Formats: sequence, C-alpha cells, structure tokens
Amino acid sequence: MARDTTTAVLLLSCQDKKGLVAGTSEFIYRNNGNIVHADQHVDIEAGLFLQRVEWELADFRIPRAELADAFRAIAEKFGMQWELHFSDYVPRMVIFVSKLEHCLSDLLVRQRMGEFAAEIPLVISNHPDLQQLVETFGPEYHFYPVTKETKAAQEKKQIELLQEARIDLVVLARYMQILSGEFVTRFGNRIINIHHSFLPAFPGGRPYHQAYERGVKIIGATSHYATEELDQGPIIEQDVVRVSHRDSVPDLVRKGKDLEKIVLARAVSLHLGNRILVYGNKTVVFD
Amino acid sequence: MARDTTTAVLLLSCQDKKGLVAGTSEFIYRNNGNIVHADQHVDIEAGLFLQRVEWELADFRIPRAELADAFRAIAEKFGMQWELHFSDYVPRMVIFVSKLEHCLSDLLVRQRMGEFAAEIPLVISNHPDLQQLVETFGPEYHFYPVTKETKAAQEKKQIELLQEARIDLVVLARYMQILSGEFVTRFGNRIINIHHSFLPAFPGGRPYHQAYERGVKIIGATSHYATEELDQGPIIEQDVVRVSHRDSVPDLVRKGKDLEKIVLARAVSLHLGNRILVYGNKTVVFD
Amino acid sequence: MARDTTTAVLLLSCQDKKGLVAGTSEFIYRNNGNIVHADQHVDIEAGLFLQRVEWELADFRIPRAELADAFRAIAEKFGMQWELHFSDYVPRMVIFVSKLEHCLSDLLVRQRMGEFAAEIPLVISNHPDLQQLVETFGPEYHFYPVTKETKAAQEKKQIELLQEARIDLVVLARYMQILSGEFVTRFGNRIINIHHSFLPAFPGGRPYHQAYERGVKIIGATSHYATEELDQGPIIEQDVVRVSHRDSVPDLVRKGKDLEKIVLARAVSLHLGNRILVYGNKTVVFD
Amino acid sequence: MARDTTTAVLLLSCQDKKGLVAGTSEFIYRNNGNIVHADQHVDIEAGLFLQRVEWELADFRIPRAELADAFRAIAEKFGMQWELHFSDYVPRMVIFVSKLEHCLSDLLVRQRMGEFAAEIPLVISNHPDLQQLVETFGPEYHFYPVTKETKAAQEKKQIELLQEARIDLVVLARYMQILSGEFVTRFGNRIINIHHSFLPAFPGGRPYHQAYERGVKIIGATSHYATEELDQGPIIEQDVVRVSHRDSVPDLVRKGKDLEKIVLARAVSLHLGNRILVYGNKTVVFD
Repeated sequence: MARDTTTAVLLLSCQDKKGLVAGTSEFIYRNNGNIVHADQHVDIEAGLFLQRVEWELADFRIPRAELADAFRAIAEKFGMQWELHFSDYVPRMVIFVSKLEHCLSDLLVRQRMGEFAAEIPLVISNHPDLQQLVETFGPEYHFYPVTKETKAAQEKKQIELLQEARIDLVVLARYMQILSGEFVTRFGNRIINIHHSFLPAFPGGRPYHQAYERGVKIIGATSHYATEELDQGPIIEQDVVRVSHRDSVPDLVRKGKDLEKIVLARAVSLHLGNRILVYGNKTVVFD
Repeated sequence: MARDTTTAVLLLSCQDKKGLVAGTSEFIYRNNGNIVHADQHVDIEAGLFLQRVEWELADFRIPRAELADAFRAIAEKFGMQWELHFSDYVPRMVIFVSKLEHCLSDLLVRQRMGEFAAEIPLVISNHPDLQQLVETFGPEYHFYPVTKETKAAQEKKQIELLQEARIDLVVLARYMQILSGEFVTRFGNRIINIHHSFLPAFPGGRPYHQAYERGVKIIGATSHYATEELDQGPIIEQDVVRVSHRDSVPDLVRKGKDLEKIVLARAVSLHLGNRILVYGNKTVVFD
Repeated sequence: MARDTTTAVLLLSCQDKKGLVAGTSEFIYRNNGNIVHADQHVDIEAGLFLQRVEWELADFRIPRAELADAFRAIAEKFGMQWELHFSDYVPRMVIFVSKLEHCLSDLLVRQRMGEFAAEIPLVISNHPDLQQLVETFGPEYHFYPVTKETKAAQEKKQIELLQEARIDLVVLARYMQILSGEFVTRFGNRIINIHHSFLPAFPGGRPYHQAYERGVKIIGATSHYATEELDQGPIIEQDVVRVSHRDSVPDLVRKGKDLEKIVLARAVSLHLGNRILVYGNKTVVFD
Repeated sequence: MARDTTTAVLLLSCQDKKGLVAGTSEFIYRNNGNIVHADQHVDIEAGLFLQRVEWELADFRIPRAELADAFRAIAEKFGMQWELHFSDYVPRMVIFVSKLEHCLSDLLVRQRMGEFAAEIPLVISNHPDLQQLVETFGPEYHFYPVTKETKAAQEKKQIELLQEARIDLVVLARYMQILSGEFVTRFGNRIINIHHSFLPAFPGGRPYHQAYERGVKIIGATSHYATEELDQGPIIEQDVVRVSHRDSVPDLVRKGKDLEKIVLARAVSLHLGNRILVYGNKTVVFD
C-alpha cells in the first residue's frame, strides 16, 4: 500500500515573542509528525511573527478531524491568527473574464495539464464571446451582461452562484468590471486580480498606453488580492520585461500578455499551495 | 602606420518622408565613407524619423572641418534637427554628489579602468565628506555648501565653474539638491540623473521606504535626463531586481545601490557614445 | 478605400563594402517606396554585412511580380545572398509534438488569438495522446508511431505530407524524436526546436535533472534552428528564471515549462516576421 | 545603554528525522533566546535536513563561551554537522587578483562603504600593477610573481602569510592562476571564485570568446567555492544579462564585468553572513 503523503499546513501570525517556533514544532513533534516544510518571518518593525509549517499526516497521532481543536490551545496561548489546510482538499476556483482570453486560456491549459490542484467548475463573463472556448475545456460558462443599472443585481446573482458552487477562490483574468466593496469583502483575500502594469506605476486603465507615453524601458505585470480600493491590494507577484523605443503600444500589449499570464498563474499556484499570508496591505510568500 | 579609426556620428531627426535613408547613406557613400553603424527608428504616431549613422573618416573625401557645412544642405532639404560628433573628441564630465558614495565610486573606478572615453576634471558636492576619496582618483573636489538662502548664489558659481571647465556632461550621482530650472535649461539633455526607483513608481523622496510600505516584489532604478519637473525627464535606462518580504528597508537600499550604479553607468556610456536621441519626453537609444 | 499596408521585406547578406546601405535604400527610394523598418549589422571580424529592410508596396513603382527580378541587378552587383518576403503571405506551419503539451497548447492558443500571422493546418505526433486537444483547436492530427525500425519510413511519409501541405515552417514543440540529417537538411533554417536548458549548458537529455545535480541558481530555455548536430544549431532566443535549493526536479520542470513556451513562441514570431538571418552558426535577430 | 544586538548563528545538517526543528528551537527557547531568523531545508532525495537559526544573545542564559559545549549534546543526539558563529566576530578576508581590477575595486569600495562586516588586511597578486590602487584603500599589497617553476614555492609562502594573518576567507577576484589541490583543500569551502560565464556553460578559459562563437543571447557569471576540479565547485550565486548580435567580444567583456562584480559581491556577503551551507557539490543559501 502506498504511503499516505497527505500533509497539513498551518499558516499563522501573531505578535512576536520567544518560544513561538518551539511551541509549534514541539506540538508537531510530540504528536509524531514529520515536518516537510517550515518557514517563518519576523517583521521586526511591526513586531509580527508569521509562519508556515507543513507536516505529514501519516503516523501523526491526532486524527485530522481533531487537529484544529488540538492546536487551538497553542494558538490561544500565543494569540495567533491561524488557518489549517489539508493537502488533499481540492479547492474550487472560478475565473472571471471579459473579452481578452490569454489569461483565461492559460489557466485552462494549466488546469488541463494538472498544474493546479484545483477544480474550475465555472467561468463567469460579462461578454458571451468566450463560451465555446471555455466549454471545450470543461467548465460551465455563465454570461452576466453588466450595465450601470444591472450591475448590483448581476453581482448579487454571481455571489449566489459562487456560494452554491462552494467557490474557494475567485480569479479575475482580465475582468474589466470593478467589483463592489461588498463582493470584495465577502471574498476577502480570496480574489486574485492581474493588473497589466508594474504597480504602483500606471494604476487604472490603459497602463500600456501610459507606459508608452512615459517612455519606460521596462514594463511589468502585478497580481494582487483585490481590495475595495482599485489596484491597491496586497501584491502577490510581479514580473517585468524589457522594452525599447521600437515597441509600439500593440507590442507592449503583446509582450505584456505573456507577463500577465505567468504572473497570474504563479499567484494562483501560490494561493492554492497555501503559501501566502496577508498582513496589513502586504503579503508574505513562503515559496 | 596604424589605420585611422576615427568615426563621425550623425544623430538626426525630422518629419518622416521618403528618401531619408537614401539621402544620408548616399551622401556618405558618394564621399567614400564606410558606414560602421546605422540604425533608424520611425515613430509612426508622431510621424517622426530618427537616425544614428556612424562612418569612418579614413578615406572620407570631405575634411572633418568642412563636414558640418557639407551635410547642412541635406539637413535643410529634409528639415532635420541634427548633431555631428567625432569619436576622438574626449567629452568632459562633472559629477555632482552629496554623501552617498556608491555611484560616485563606481564612476571613478570605471573612469580609471578606461571604460568611459571621457575626462572627469571635477566633482562638485554640497558636503565635504568625499573629498579624500575623489582626490585619490584625480579629479578636483569642489565643496559648495547649500542652504535655502545660499542656493541661488552657489548654483551661479557652479555654473561659472562648469563653463570655465568646458563641461559637456553633468552627472548627478545621488546629488540630493534640486537644481533650478535655469541650471537644467542651460544644460538641456546634458544632465543625467539617477533615481532610486522604477519610475514612474515612487517619485520623490524615500522611494525605498515607499516600496517597502507598498510591499512590491521588485524594485528598480531609473536614469533620466533632468528636466525642470522633478523625476519626469526622458528615461534613458532602467533595471530591476527581485525582493521579498525578507528584505527590510536597509536590504532594499543595499540591493538598490547595485542597480543605481549600473543603471547610471549604462546611461553615461550611452550618452558618451552619442547613442541617445531625445524627442518629446522620450529617448531613442541606438545601442 | 483603406490604404494598402502590405510591405515587402528584404533580408540580405554579403561581404561588407562601401555603398551597401546606399545601394538598397536608393533602389527603394528611386521607385517611390516608403521604408518602415531598416536595420543592418556588420560583423567586423567576419567582414559580413547583413540587412533587413521593409517598405510599403503602396505607391511602389515596381509591381510585386517583377520586384525580385528588379532587385536582382543590385544583388548581383554586391554578391548578396537575399530573400524577399511579402507581409500578406500567410506561412503554413506544422507542429511536431510527443506527449508534453505545454508548448503545443501555447502555440495553438496564440494562433487562436491571432498572435501569429500563420496557418497551422496540421500537427504531427509519435503518440496518439493529444489528438482531441489538437482537433478542438482546428488542425488535423497525424499520428506516426516511431520505432527504431520504422523511423526512416515514417519520416519519409512525414516529409511527403509536409510537401503536400506546402509547409513553410516546422516547429518542434518538445518532440522527443531526433530528426534525420536528411529531414533537417531539406528544411534548412526552417525547423525551430525548443531545448529545455540554457544551451550550451546541459545539452542532450534530462537537462532539468542535470541542472538539479549541478546546483545551478538559474535555469533557462533555448530555441534554435535544428541542424544535424543535436542541440548545436543557431540560437534564436533564450530566457532564464531564478531557482534555488528549494526547487526539486519537478519544480524545475514546472518553472522551465513557462520558459519553454515563451522562448519558443518568441522564436516562431521572429521567424514568421522575417526578422532572422542565419550566418555561420549564429543568428542576427532584427527585432 | 544600548541593547546588545549580538546574535548567534547555527548552521547545521544531518540525516532528516522527526524532532529536529523542535530540538533546536526548544534548546534556544528553554534558555531564553529570541530567534530572529530561522530557515530550514529538507533535501528529500538525499534524506538530508539543513538549517540556519539565528538568535539574540541578550538575555540568553548560556554564556557564549559555553554555548558550543551546551549545544553539543543536541548535535550528537541527532548526528549533526554544525558550525556556530557570532555576529560580532569580524572575519578577515584576503583578495587574490591578477591584472583585471574591476572585481577588486568593487570589493574595496564596498568594504570602504561598510557593506561587508569584514576586514581586508591584504591583497595578493601575481602582478605588481594594482599596488597603488590597493594601498590607497588600505590593505597591504603582496606581489608573488608565479612561474611554472616557482608556483609551488610561492603558494607555500602565500599559505604561510594567510595563516599569519589569520585569514578566514579567500576571494579570487579574477585571479588567473590555478590554485593547487593542497591550497584548495586547506581552505575548504572558504575560497570563493568568480567565473566569467554561466557555468556549466563555457568552463575554462576565454568564456566570452566561446559565448561569442556560440552566438548565445544571454551571458552570465558564476560565483562558486573553489574545489580541486576547475570550475566544478558548489555554485553560490549566478546572474545573467541579455546580449545580441550587436555585441562584439569586447562588449561581452564589458557587460560581463558588471555581472562578475555583483555576483562575486553577493557571494561574499552571503558567506560573511553565514548564510551558506555546502552539501555534496551544492549549496543551500539561506537568504
């Protein structure tokens, strides 16, 4: 019989004090867990301790159903905020898209290749254009046309659909509508957006045009958790590519698309692997 | 006897029209010049043609003293703006610095190694700290303490000094004073500044602190020609380096210093090689 | 009526001498052509001149059917090797693939988005696995199982198929069979391969394992024209990504896939845009 | 009175087993140490656990003189290989150089700026050229001309000098002599070399010429611990820069110098910060 390779992941943060690393590692060791990954970070200015620890459940003495309760004692002692995840849980992810398909296609292809340990039961769009492409890959396609008047009502329906589908993660793959504060709050730190610039440079619309006008020599893309303030959320990942005076706006768009795809996919992978902790308006990425 | 390898460089721009490439290349060919580098760019939106062409003076039929006059006919026919440079001219460069020495040292070391075909007769600073270091490498050190009250008078003296010393290029190597509009205008497109961020992100002061607060995953440096508007001039070169949550502000400063040095040195080299054309608020870099 | 934006592209090389730039540009100007891109390179050691020039056919006085003949006089005068291309010709491209689908999918998605000005009438594989995926996107799928014994015969059939389909470009998208010298010669400088390392490091099989063993801190991918000698052909494009001790072989594979996709796609785009000149075992890329 | 910020650093490795993280962290916690950095890595294939842990000595109950002894019990229990360092120890570093000064100058400038927490009492060279430069910055300059005949004898003198000067780290800053196996063994994992290529590509001499011949699109530099086999030692850091057909060999040399400087300086910093663990022929870099 194959060995059980399921792992548990703890993501935790609290005020920094002595004994934190010992406290958690001793808890795992005492219960016969084998740590396969542990990483921590101390934000000295903020006096904050953040940790990710992952261990194998095989031979672990606490049944997984009782694990959260068992850890709670330690968490309360140190005043920790914490999340517990199991590696065999398959998160459910929805993709929001408008008309530009490069990020969507990239995510669907990665999903098909097994790169994400996630399901993508549905795709939501404010345009009908990409229905056939999406359905070829499997997910249901839900078309919600949005106007100024219908926006609130449509968003309400979307939220209902997401709840019914037990969605864990919302990915905005160049979705050109701004989500309401209510939507964003409801899925706090579970909405990943891709912005087509090297934030905080060129926030808002038409960043490639802005980059062209400014004459920058490098362009970028930024994935971040969506917050109420547009393009201001915690940054997960960024990458850049060199450009020159030879690059017209369409060239920037083309080069940028390759950045957007990869930066978004990396952010989604990191999130699905429970490797991101948000604190304040920043992320700690335990990669 | 060694062959004369001196070259002439034309940097020109004009409204795009047919015959421009032929006009210039035919002029050089007819006079028996051998082109060693030619590159052009058409900004289609702006309808602008920009060119750099470099050819050997050996065997060229027009004596260098008459070359500018000879080319003027072509330039006027096409309505060109143009500059003519000779590769054996050794430009004279001044470095402005405050207290941070990394860019200054880097430039002096490069100069010592023969990386720049330029002289550095003097260094100007608003602090006395770096005098010994500078004098070790050769240049004169001029200390101009600056207060709000003395600033205009000191700048006047600096300009006089620069004129006496026949300075061609001003390099602001982390000089923490803002030059007046008059100064900047007088040395238009001949003042290179290094800004310690990936502009237009984090203009103004303390960009590393700003980058830390925002939680970016990449930081950068930008060299640009100084203009009256702070940090808004034509960008010459940029580069970036990856950072993470592990990097404190001092880490960003340390990583950034290596960027600043290299980005500034590249910009200075490109300028000294007559490889930059400014148009509007942008540069064409013929590298 | 919309203006004809079709362009002609000349790619040429010859021994360097005076008058080459003038010769070509004067030919275009005299016949009323508007140059939209011109770039040249002199390999001084090799004494070789290489040029790409592109001009609009609208208003050009020589009909395209007579253009090649008209240019031949100049070409012969200078002893040029040259190619003439028209921008409205749609090249036909075949993709060879084995079982790994990331490069294939990426190319098909780009084709669907209109990123390539090319047709992909067929995909050839030595495995049946990817048939459904390919057919979803449109191309025919041809399955040629290959054993040591059948290899020569199968390759013969493939060549026939490619000839019937009038294929201009062969893309090896992680095709795990080595093509014969005869095949490679027949499609000289028209077969683009992607190698999953930063050549010349780690040629041959299992480069990610080799990279892991060696403990490198950066991995890469290389696209090159296939030649008889494996992994030795002229390099078109390379890119790299940082790795660390935390990256296992599967991590390297995963990170590398994103490199391979992008490096291969860039090479294909450059080739389709007639921007590559091969000389000796090197390329000049006029980007 | 200012708080004592001295820290202790443990670098350890052993066969992976349960309780390792708990063992060390519990030891530190029990003795009232505050962990400021802890990072570990498990090489699953090799079954090896590697860790770096750093904690403040202020309030730590074990005096530093007794710390090694106190930890030995834990180390022996787990069969650990380990090193203990204190942050207030100032390592002594020697630079070996030949004629190329860019790496040497860069290290001296960084030292002057306080970037390294190290002393550089002496520089050794097989050429007299750089004496004045070095002495300006402070270190003694020792000139050891080396011929085939004198090499062994000169190396013997160098080793004596290094021992007298209590040298902790040898930095080969483009030193063009190959050190003997005896020398390398004596300073095992304490000799850092910079190789001017992206190893394992282009080992041996003249890598820029080789890179030019091969027509690569990216060049690199590699810092590694010197071992008996030339250019085969554990890699510490690498970096790369893009090149094109426009770059001649001197251009590659010039671009490469900037890489060499930075890659070497990073490696030296990491070593001085006790952030590198060597195992097999690889490094774990806890940055």
